[in-house]
Amino acid sequence: MLAEILRRIRSQSPLVHCITNYVTANDCANLLLAAGASPMMADEPLEMEEINALSGAHVFNLGTPNAARIEAMRIAGRAANATGKPVVFDPVGVGSSAFRRQAARQLLAEVRFSIIRGNASEIRTLARGDMAHRGVDADFEERAPRQNAVLLARRTGAVVALTGDQDIVTDGETIFRVRNGHPMMRTVTGAGCMLSALAGACAAANPDKPLQAALAAVCAMGVCGEHAHRRMSDREGNASYRNHIIDALYRLTPEELEEEARYETE
Amino acid sequence: MLAEILRRIRSQSPLVHCITNYVTANDCANLLLAAGASPMMADEPLEMEEINALSGAHVFNLGTPNAARIEAMRIAGRAANATGKPVVFDPVGVGSSAFRRQAARQLLAEVRFSIIRGNASEIRTLARGDMAHRGVDADFEERAPRQNAVLLARRTGAVVALTGDQDIVTDGETIFRVRNGHPMMRTVTGAGCMLSALAGACAAANPDKPLQAALAAVCAMGVCGEHAHRRMSDREGNASYRNHIIDALYRLTPEELEEEARYETE
Amino acid sequence: MLAEILRRIRSQSPLVHCITNYVTANDCANLLLAAGASPMMADEPLEMEEINALSGAHVFNLGTPNAARIEAMRIAGRAANATGKPVVFDPVGVGSSAFRRQAARQLLAEVRFSIIRGNASEIRTLARGDMAHRGVDADFEERAPRQNAVLLARRTGAVVALTGDQDIVTDGETIFRVRNGHPMMRTVTGAGCMLSALAGACAAANPDKPLQAALAAVCAMGVCGEHAHRRMSDREGNASYRNHIIDALYRLTPEELEEEARYETE
Repeated sequence: MLAEILRRIRSQSPLVHCITNYVTANDCANLLLAAGASPMMADEPLEMEEINALSGAHVFNLGTPNAARIEAMRIAGRAANATGKPVVFDPVGVGSSAFRRQAARQLLAEVRFSIIRGNASEIRTLARGDMAHRGVDADFEERAPRQNAVLLARRTGAVVALTGDQDIVTDGETIFRVRNGHPMMRTVTGAGCMLSALAGACAAANPDKPLQAALAAVCAMGVCGEHAHRRMSDREGNASYRNHIIDALYRLTPEELEEEARYETE
Repeated sequence: MLAEILRRIRSQSPLVHCITNYVTANDCANLLLAAGASPMMADEPLEMEEINALSGAHVFNLGTPNAARIEAMRIAGRAANATGKPVVFDPVGVGSSAFRRQAARQLLAEVRFSIIRGNASEIRTLARGDMAHRGVDADFEERAPRQNAVLLARRTGAVVALTGDQDIVTDGETIFRVRNGHPMMRTVTGAGCMLSALAGACAAANPDKPLQAALAAVCAMGVCGEHAHRRMSDREGNASYRNHIIDALYRLTPEELEEEARYETE
Repeated sequence: MLAEILRRIRSQSPLVHCITNYVTANDCANLLLAAGASPMMADEPLEMEEINALSGAHVFNLGTPNAARIEAMRIAGRAANATGKPVVFDPVGVGSSAFRRQAARQLLAEVRFSIIRGNASEIRTLARGDMAHRGVDADFEERAPRQNAVLLARRTGAVVALTGDQDIVTDGETIFRVRNGHPMMRTVTGAGCMLSALAGACAAANPDKPLQAALAAVCAMGVCGEHAHRRMSDREGNASYRNHIIDALYRLTPEELEEEARYETE
């Protein structure tokens, strides 16, 4: 099943338009190329409608936000919805400021997302709004990420991919838990941004299967993190690891993804 | 002939000012350092005149455009023309939006470029304006890129470097066809941006020879793509390849460039 | 002494907020992760107060400046001063334009910096203002960087780290001269930016010791430049060297830093 998701990216080479932060834009572009997709980073509001017409999917990333970038997301998002193009949302650091929370609220109200990809804290902020995070027992903490992901998926109609200590992919009904990945991925800036970009490529080539697209992206990124770590030598660190991850996706075959993906339904 | 172009960059270390996209700015800066030039990325309109005074050449790149960046190009371009500094134009994705086409039109009307570097589609858009691309016979398609490059060179007075499946460098009279390069360069984001930055370094150190400067840049980038590919190991992909390309230019000697450049006049 | 500075970054993993240029933001983020810190790049003025509350320190970098980025620095800087968070200033290219000199003047007037990190020319511009650089005898040129660093430190109350041909760290009283580093660091874009980011991590984890924090950052970056150079192979160039530097910091132990730091008081 997952092999086919990647195979379609390679055969179709969809254009994936990213409105994204300037910290990891280069890595996201090279990762999209490694996947077999074609990246286009652009955030001028005046050109969003035309770029939507050329694109197979959009990825909105909330890192380094400003008013113009948010406005570009609103325009591109509405155009995407009107033309049936999938949109992925990565609410980077959404809990960090009222500016980001407000931007996220507006985007969730105006744009129908295919996939929302974030860490546990970001998904909680989107799922629970501005509610203060109360002290809770450990058992609830363990269950909370999954519950927040399901809640957000049901409320928005998007597939939610929550990644970090646990990797969960859910459409609000089916819940996948993914066991791929490596802890060293935390030492690379933009590992999450790259995953969201990859989800955009998966969705672009498989627009009618957002759940499988998100699952394939999470598994593929995890498998690449594993391959990349096996390649590490004694003197290498996180800069090399970043390159190895992108290289690994460039080399990853659909068959390897199918064989090495480790996930289960809950 | 080409050896001397590179030798002058290494001996003069010209400052190359780039108004460029945020996706590949880092790669362009490191490539300029590899060439022996000194990079300066800046796009605040208020400082363009002073930065022109410090610069040996400018490179304008239309990726991730916005109104302020275009305004900066207009100011820097006019200052460069008034002081005899070469300007390279890279019309990234100019066919993607009315915003970019309008920006390109304005820049071509106000600024005299030394070198315009783009792919076949970008050069066609600049050469043929907004004319719809009509269905044409294969023979015309084969000849069209060269014809568009010549047409654009004659109309603007710039040397045009058209790169991609074919690499053509022309001042509207002499036409060089370059045979260097490797198909894997398409898998690296910013290969075109880096080539344009390198053309800026070549022009800065050789301001009276734009045709040779552009030819040297296209050949050097192609030779580096070849060297970089020979260095690839089994587990490396496009992230490593990007680093290998920059490394290759760092190592490239003027003599190697002279010997390995493969070009002919048409 | 220096070992402890790095050890505290590793144990506390402070959030280091950077308002920085888009050319080297990715390298700074990965370098901060290599140090053991947690990077956050953000420059929207509206979110600066909240981000200050989350941060252990700020790093302001004057590369690719614009009005919004300077405004963000002013707000974040005042918030940092009010809450006792260290702020590092990297006046990139401050001599290049009136816009940058004016921005620097305003920031120095409104914000109390813990550390100012720049090259000899940038420190001279800050220390001597707009005074023309007069022709002077060689002996003065030799002493001038140190004198400018001391002058700037006394005037601002900041620790000044001047790096380049000579590396000097001073609080206006004690003057350290650092002997680490490698000339090839000049061929990597952002080596200075990365050093300033690292100084931010050192200051965040050691807010009461700005002199030692700055000294540790300069020594650590130099040691990493040495380690990285020892790893270079025949075909590698400045792109590989950049990765090796970040990797070297990832691998650097506090004990190695202590042993390999080469500095003396003057």
